[in-house]
Amino acid sequence: MKLLQQRILKDGHLKEGNILKVDSFLNHQMDIKLLNEIGKEFKRLFSDHSITKILTIETSGIGIAAIAAQHFDDIPVVFAKKVKSKNLDGELFTSKAQSFTKGIVYDIQVAKKFLTADDHVLIIDDFLAKGQALLGLIDIVQQSQANLVGCGIVIEKGFQNGGQIIRQKGIRLESLAIIDSIENNQIVFG
Amino acid sequence: MKLLQQRILKDGHLKEGNILKVDSFLNHQMDIKLLNEIGKEFKRLFSDHSITKILTIETSGIGIAAIAAQHFDDIPVVFAKKVKSKNLDGELFTSKAQSFTKGIVYDIQVAKKFLTADDHVLIIDDFLAKGQALLGLIDIVQQSQANLVGCGIVIEKGFQNGGQIIRQKGIRLESLAIIDSIENNQIVFG
Repeated sequence: MKLLQQRILKDGHLKEGNILKVDSFLNHQMDIKLLNEIGKEFKRLFSDHSITKILTIETSGIGIAAIAAQHFDDIPVVFAKKVKSKNLDGELFTSKAQSFTKGIVYDIQVAKKFLTADDHVLIIDDFLAKGQALLGLIDIVQQSQANLVGCGIVIEKGFQNGGQIIRQKGIRLESLAIIDSIENNQIVFG
Repeated sequence: MKLLQQRILKDGHLKEGNILKVDSFLNHQMDIKLLNEIGKEFKRLFSDHSITKILTIETSGIGIAAIAAQHFDDIPVVFAKKVKSKNLDGELFTSKAQSFTKGIVYDIQVAKKFLTADDHVLIIDDFLAKGQALLGLIDIVQQSQANLVGCGIVIEKGFQNGGQIIRQKGIRLESLAIIDSIENNQIVFG
């Protein structure tokens, strides 16, 4: 997605440890117009499927998924939660995920009532690096026996192995920008 | 907002400790159509002001704020973060907030570059109970010297004192549904 690549080059910042910061438009401050273009592109890519629900994970996926849902006939968005709170009860699907940026392992949870065998699910998230969050979400969809249509990612770090792991499972994965390498402080897209 | 009150009565669940669960449409699964009606209503209420930025806090405010921003000419949404992560650097505005539902105190942070003295800020959040999160966000806006236009809340628990504290500060607070009491498992709106 050209517009996204241009924006990453213009406003993204590289930090130590191959961390790309896109906090001015994607995951701290959100550019709503750009999110709508992202949502449109996900719709275009997955237009051959009937999708009944979008699944994402807190925090950065939520705004992207909410805006994207408008391009899928306002289907409901469910966001997986990362911590146990008093306010999330009932039967839960649970899995584990590791945060690349925070260096911690956390439980992820979705209330069972929000994912059923009748659902056709598109998973959306902002980043794909080692794939831990995405694998946790995929695990939860599989537990629910819903049909996993595929995964839509805004930025994939192609030089890490998350995308490979997921594609090797035969899961459809569409990343709007794939970064092949970050060398000499230069971002190279795939 | 009648539509919201009806939805709370239809799909809200009361739990021990006066906790109202609205996870089927607001803060675990999100009803995107309803969020658009909520966004429209915030725009109607604050249409007399020029607003340049929406500020919210992770997690549940993000989807609401992102959808609402579309009704304010796609202005940027900034969401305050609750924990320190390697991925949030630079100069930060910080404050503290207590989670009513989780029973913990956490730091909240916004990168200084995303709130400036030129901004006219609308704060949006899903719930207002004791007001801790909102007071933290207000503190951050005041630190930034931006103009705080007001606060838009989806559900205010009128029987807790957060709303009173904020209105007594002379801050404009618009809550789309105010719950006056929860008695005998019955929700009474104000």
